Amino acid sequence: MKIGGAHYRTIWPDGDGVRVIDQTRLPFAFEAVLLQTCSDATKAIRDMIVRGAPLIGATAAWGVALAMRADASDASLDSALRELGATRPTAVNLRWALERMANALRTLPVGRRNETATLEAMRICDEDVECCRAIGFHGLLLLRDIAQRKGHVNILTHCNAGWLATVDFGTALSTVYQAHDSGIDLHVWVDETRPRNQGASLTAFELGAHGVKHTIIADNAGGHYMQHGQVDMVIVGTDRVAANGDVANKIGTYLKALAAYDNVVPFYVALPSSTIDWTIDDGLRGIPIEERNPREVTHIQGLLADGSMAEMQVTAPGSAAANPAFDVTPARLVTGFITERGLCAANADGLRSLFPELSA
Amino acid sequence: MKIGGAHYRTIWPDGDGVRVIDQTRLPFAFEAVLLQTCSDATKAIRDMIVRGAPLIGATAAWGVALAMRADASDASLDSALRELGATRPTAVNLRWALERMANALRTLPVGRRNETATLEAMRICDEDVECCRAIGFHGLLLLRDIAQRKGHVNILTHCNAGWLATVDFGTALSTVYQAHDSGIDLHVWVDETRPRNQGASLTAFELGAHGVKHTIIADNAGGHYMQHGQVDMVIVGTDRVAANGDVANKIGTYLKALAAYDNVVPFYVALPSSTIDWTIDDGLRGIPIEERNPREVTHIQGLLADGSMAEMQVTAPGSAAANPAFDVTPARLVTGFITERGLCAANADGLRSLFPELSA
Repeated sequence: MKIGGAHYRTIWPDGDGVRVIDQTRLPFAFEAVLLQTCSDATKAIRDMIVRGAPLIGATAAWGVALAMRADASDASLDSALRELGATRPTAVNLRWALERMANALRTLPVGRRNETATLEAMRICDEDVECCRAIGFHGLLLLRDIAQRKGHVNILTHCNAGWLATVDFGTALSTVYQAHDSGIDLHVWVDETRPRNQGASLTAFELGAHGVKHTIIADNAGGHYMQHGQVDMVIVGTDRVAANGDVANKIGTYLKALAAYDNVVPFYVALPSSTIDWTIDDGLRGIPIEERNPREVTHIQGLLADGSMAEMQVTAPGSAAANPAFDVTPARLVTGFITERGLCAANADGLRSLFPELSA
Repeated sequence: MKIGGAHYRTIWPDGDGVRVIDQTRLPFAFEAVLLQTCSDATKAIRDMIVRGAPLIGATAAWGVALAMRADASDASLDSALRELGATRPTAVNLRWALERMANALRTLPVGRRNETATLEAMRICDEDVECCRAIGFHGLLLLRDIAQRKGHVNILTHCNAGWLATVDFGTALSTVYQAHDSGIDLHVWVDETRPRNQGASLTAFELGAHGVKHTIIADNAGGHYMQHGQVDMVIVGTDRVAANGDVANKIGTYLKALAAYDNVVPFYVALPSSTIDWTIDDGLRGIPIEERNPREVTHIQGLLADGSMAEMQVTAPGSAAANPAFDVTPARLVTGFITERGLCAANADGLRSLFPELSA
């Protein structure tokens, strides 16, 4: 991803630590913060300095590596896995990355863990980049079909499944970037994605930086545009796909999937295979949904007229709020998955056909 | 409606003018502003100092009366009707109230128009209060059924269809207030209703003032709660119902109707008969949808930590926004209408059966 002419990943090694872009300051400030300890990484995930399922996984892997630098003992490894594993409940990439780090390190002599952990964390990041590039390519083919038929493409996306949600390129937005770069005339409806506004802040910021035409809309508006033929395809990311094809993603995704289905608009979910949870057969019942602080609903961060950032209350004082962070879209509403190995149907057979060795 | 022990309507005569509650200042300040001219009334409707279809109608009627006080000529009447009629395109109560005022005044001698206009505006307000009371009673019977079966009732509502949207009592919320006052244990999920947050500000304020249990949620969250059995009924208001039963209401209502349908949750629309547009047979194609200033999406008003009200930008600088204010829920998704004459099916036969003299 290019910001002001420089190419960035969302996470990169820097001296004794690892640097990440502080996503709580975007779009109003672009700052990279240094994580030097496993606790720093834990805090970055928990406080959503980093977010997005693939980037959560990559940051967790680096958290383990930072723990190994300080102390490569079994106790330190166990503590890091426990601490990082407790940060966010829904994104399964977290568990996937921690299991992969544990498998790479557990049987090694203590003296070799530090270097191996760093190499494995870097490998997880590099693989994520390649996954996202491949996802973008497979999605591009879908968009090219629409562009050839209609001359232009209107995409709707919810939350942020762009380069900021991954190590680079993104999942849903990787598709958009590749289509844009290949000359397809496209426009993206960006759901603002309350309560944390990742669409209005992160997705709009990314698309603007890349020069992609886009319009921010309230989360309420997507159905209206679909009713009036102004959405050709919905593409979203996901935090966890169950083995039956049910999709956990940012709260409100389910509502857009219903509207897409009602208006015969294709609804695609883009994901790396690390987002599939083969242990859950019923996503609606089985995927844990994170309940976050109601303050994310009652208060909002933004830019005052004088250019300073501030937080305001936007709800009636004294009224309670609730804040479920994700919902589950039943597989029956999903047209298909876009993965690093290509497209498949949103069901157990579809997933197994692309990833036989993982589903075994 | 009671605020701090005093009973309020949302609009009442005061000296030479008419006073309304400034809804752009709620929930952080409760202020009544004086409208002294037809232009004041026009501005109040256009700038959403007053909003809600029935209250827009009542305010427009008063706007005509204020015009007649200043100048009761035909030219003045025509000008008032034109000016007020151009304020908001979607709420049909506006047209209904203006036509009623025109019919009452047009054939009168100029010297009798002032007094008649005032009486007619007061009559429109009084009738709205009685309509809303009756709507509440009919809706109460539905809620009582659920309460008897389950012991308690969870309602979800979108936007504000309470006393602030009408002259008193409300439409959807009239039902809630009557149920609450009759001892039914109920709780309301309040959609915050972006972009103007009428749910988080107005509905939550009203419910809090009346002592009704409620929880503010992001507009994205309702589908999730319906999937998990935490919504027994959705009740909303409407700005215009077409003769075929299609329902125009605040943007995002359609998404909630889809989720209700998908989860077999009853979805009711509460309305006075003045909200029915007998001239439109296909709401989705025929009802005009107001496109409002994108600044309502990019900027938000709230309360800073020091207690002052301010406005902030909450979207990526440089990104465009779009702001359709309403959407249309197809009649097939609506379980039924709650009107001042009772319940009916959401279709042409249902509406005709309750209002044969209007549909003729």
